[in-house]
Amino acid sequence: MKNKSLKIIPVGGLGEVGRNMMIYEYDGDIIIVDCGLMFPNNDMLGVDYIIPDFQYLRNNRDKIRALIFTHGHEDHIGAVNYFLEEFNVPIYATPLTMGLIKVKLGKASSANRDVALHTVQAGSQVKIGKFKVDFFHVCHSIPDSVGLGIETPEGLIVQSGDYKFDHTPVDNWPTDYGKLVEFSKRGVLALISDSTNSTRPGWTPSEQVVGEALEKVFSQADGRIIVASFASLISRMQQVVNAAKKFNRKIAFVGTSMVENAKIAQKMGFLSIDEDQKISIEEALHLPDEKVAIMCTGSQGEPTSILGRLSRGTQRQFDIKEGDTVVLSSKTIPGNEEAVFSTINDLFRRGANVIYEEIAPVHVSGHGGQEDIKLLLHLTRPKYFIPAYGELRQLKQAAILAMQTGIPERHIAVVEDGQVITFKNNKMRMGDIEPISMVFVDGSGVGDIGPAEMRDREMLSKDGIILVHVILRKSDGSLIADPEIVSRGFTSTKEADGLLNQARKTILTTIKRNPDNLEKDITKTLSGFIYRETRRRPTIMVTVSSI
Amino acid sequence: MKNKSLKIIPVGGLGEVGRNMMIYEYDGDIIIVDCGLMFPNNDMLGVDYIIPDFQYLRNNRDKIRALIFTHGHEDHIGAVNYFLEEFNVPIYATPLTMGLIKVKLGKASSANRDVALHTVQAGSQVKIGKFKVDFFHVCHSIPDSVGLGIETPEGLIVQSGDYKFDHTPVDNWPTDYGKLVEFSKRGVLALISDSTNSTRPGWTPSEQVVGEALEKVFSQADGRIIVASFASLISRMQQVVNAAKKFNRKIAFVGTSMVENAKIAQKMGFLSIDEDQKISIEEALHLPDEKVAIMCTGSQGEPTSILGRLSRGTQRQFDIKEGDTVVLSSKTIPGNEEAVFSTINDLFRRGANVIYEEIAPVHVSGHGGQEDIKLLLHLTRPKYFIPAYGELRQLKQAAILAMQTGIPERHIAVVEDGQVITFKNNKMRMGDIEPISMVFVDGSGVGDIGPAEMRDREMLSKDGIILVHVILRKSDGSLIADPEIVSRGFTSTKEADGLLNQARKTILTTIKRNPDNLEKDITKTLSGFIYRETRRRPTIMVTVSSI
Repeated sequence: MKNKSLKIIPVGGLGEVGRNMMIYEYDGDIIIVDCGLMFPNNDMLGVDYIIPDFQYLRNNRDKIRALIFTHGHEDHIGAVNYFLEEFNVPIYATPLTMGLIKVKLGKASSANRDVALHTVQAGSQVKIGKFKVDFFHVCHSIPDSVGLGIETPEGLIVQSGDYKFDHTPVDNWPTDYGKLVEFSKRGVLALISDSTNSTRPGWTPSEQVVGEALEKVFSQADGRIIVASFASLISRMQQVVNAAKKFNRKIAFVGTSMVENAKIAQKMGFLSIDEDQKISIEEALHLPDEKVAIMCTGSQGEPTSILGRLSRGTQRQFDIKEGDTVVLSSKTIPGNEEAVFSTINDLFRRGANVIYEEIAPVHVSGHGGQEDIKLLLHLTRPKYFIPAYGELRQLKQAAILAMQTGIPERHIAVVEDGQVITFKNNKMRMGDIEPISMVFVDGSGVGDIGPAEMRDREMLSKDGIILVHVILRKSDGSLIADPEIVSRGFTSTKEADGLLNQARKTILTTIKRNPDNLEKDITKTLSGFIYRETRRRPTIMVTVSSI
Repeated sequence: MKNKSLKIIPVGGLGEVGRNMMIYEYDGDIIIVDCGLMFPNNDMLGVDYIIPDFQYLRNNRDKIRALIFTHGHEDHIGAVNYFLEEFNVPIYATPLTMGLIKVKLGKASSANRDVALHTVQAGSQVKIGKFKVDFFHVCHSIPDSVGLGIETPEGLIVQSGDYKFDHTPVDNWPTDYGKLVEFSKRGVLALISDSTNSTRPGWTPSEQVVGEALEKVFSQADGRIIVASFASLISRMQQVVNAAKKFNRKIAFVGTSMVENAKIAQKMGFLSIDEDQKISIEEALHLPDEKVAIMCTGSQGEPTSILGRLSRGTQRQFDIKEGDTVVLSSKTIPGNEEAVFSTINDLFRRGANVIYEEIAPVHVSGHGGQEDIKLLLHLTRPKYFIPAYGELRQLKQAAILAMQTGIPERHIAVVEDGQVITFKNNKMRMGDIEPISMVFVDGSGVGDIGPAEMRDREMLSKDGIILVHVILRKSDGSLIADPEIVSRGFTSTKEADGLLNQARKTILTTIKRNPDNLEKDITKTLSGFIYRETRRRPTIMVTVSSI
């Protein structure tokens, strides 16, 4: 009996932005909420993305009853294929989210494809193991988003999912206030809330603001209009379609993910577009400029995206030209500022007029600001509060907001990934800390790159590498040929030649000394010499062959 | 006679933020304004900073009459030592700026130290060659800043320097409005204006806002207060000193540059601090926490700075402890967001309360916003306008502001570094384009690293390196020993072992084929094999020794 408590384990997204995953466990039953990916920081060299650490799930494989998704953004669904390579667990999601998941499954080579997919409508309740899960609609920047009311034997936990309170959302579907109040009447043991914008004062503006800004852009542009955004920002697609329709422009979606997502959203009724308005990019390029709107990816300045290629003039199908208007209609993810601004500057250089968040409200956040968060707290009136989806500084700030609404500090758990939270007899306690690793995906490798490789790559990236190869006669340790020295990324060849010739002399001197560990000794001597001459510390690799 | 026109050559700071330098040339006389450094983007791997390209100056060495500085920030004075290694030219600067330059000269080993240093008071005029230069006071985030009115035989050019219109500056010294109006009466041919904040609506707030925010922090903190900022933000130092004094705290400056700059500013009367208020860090650590304020560097999250070390617990003299309040009182330079936020999160993890720009106005910009820029335009009423100090997108936006104040588009030159602008008979024309390179400083090397090394470093940083060494018998091309294969930053050793063993087989097969270019063939085969197996493209270096 003593083990019968509710365990909540944040696996990803607490103390970081992305790879969201939360585990609920009670009496041998586990349900998982979300399975997203995270984009790497600039110092995570060569990493494609980071996925949640599945170790706890591996250790408790038999208990898992379901994987539930709140909405279709990459930071919530993006790691589903990696999950399904190891686990075969029923999936629950609303129609659009499930549609986007199916697109992913279609691309998965090694994932379990026979997994049970349960499409759930917002507003309905599903019983899974010892949990009863209410799916309630919330407004976010993608349609069909939900939060979850998770009824457990210890009480009701509300997990918000990503949300803001938008009174004029693109799809006219407001947040399910009724359900939130119903939860409050049932009594909410704990609220787990989105804290992404907890440092932003006030309310997050409605998507309507973006609609108006886009209409202004469309009313002023004479040439083509190219709107860049995320492929998963389905609401934004609808707004661009609406503006294009109003100003009598056809629209072409460009980029595989953009085209695929538009297709699935349209098929499922979440993107409304007249058949004759939607054209291919080839058709668009044959229309008069003032009849064309193009929607593509690349709002983060990603070099291989459509917009990235356009900014450098390397897009296969078309080029930016004088008179084009380019709109970057999405948030700049922290860390991408340089890439985004550099893309904007390059687009200006090519003659485009560029509209971006800093100079016009062509983007608003999908996450609630300080007042949104306070409203959710008042609507649900939880006993305990757990800020989620944010860096530690954002969780801390959300805690301050909760205190302002009257929740005592001891009822707030500001915790990061791995800190188990337990609920028993209506009381919250801190449990064990489960070890959570950064699981790096690099190419087809998952988790085979760790801190050591990151450090090596950082070293290599800073000052390049110098390679030395020495061949000795096994019989007497004498040198068979001149040591081979080559460098990469260290200095330009012209400069290096003189320096490496001097370096060769220090190597020969070291060999003559005939030390015990020749490789180590050459590395040390050479490293000292190079630092004195250049104040740089290239990686030095020495191989000695005795033959 | 036909050559007698005014040439203005932007060498740095137009189309980029930093390494500011402008050349004015008329009839064999050149004066240079500023000589700053720029901090590298995240994709400039291993670069310490970037300095202006001196090539045009080398080609016109005999014409240079003066190097004039507008203020003492690194992006305006930071490359002076590099300049003085090649040129011996009289320097003109206001007292504080000259003081900070002298600190730099004191550290220069190879720079010309016998250079003539002319200290000039704001408000005075200096005749240099065919130019008459008026130094006029402007408000910025460092005292003793000036803009320049440069009277040339073709007319008066006003270069603003960095500025904002602050009616309540820390030193009570407002912008010299009188001089600006006087310029306007004399007739301004062209205004060259700071555009850094051209995308920010409204006025930039007064430094007074920061003073009030700091006082609020000081009034609420029980423990130690640690304020991080730039070492050159002398005005901010004064504000922290004032707040500390008001709340009865002693102050310790920590970090070489911070200590040096405080000393010189104090000596020259630009930092007012009671002798008994200033203590050493050692003394501070023996005082009760509530009596201590510490000011240090590291507001950009630099790993080797005081704050960077404190956030990781590796500062030599003291550690962050529960109850400390840390204030980041400076702007986050674009591109540093990740490092700054990660430092903030780490400080929270160590128990500090952290106050930063996003949650309290503990920093305001030193650069004028849209209304400041428009006011300068109206005060000076120039015929032509050249936006400066900014990325292209910022220059473009400044041009829009100028048009809003009535300057016709054809009188505005939105140009980037290297575009020569000529003035003759009261008319502006675009001249030649001087080639301008990024001059990277890496360790003690200046300019020996270029795009090729950057590309190599980027390749190395993404997927690491694999080295192969093959020793063949010269006589018959047969293999003497097993090929040596080592990797760095490619994958963890455990994973690599199996893979590299397979790789060895592909290498042996290639050697058996006995191709013409063995090194190239092994590289190609191995690269293909590795990509198929891992979807990664490590740098591959093959050396073949025939002995």
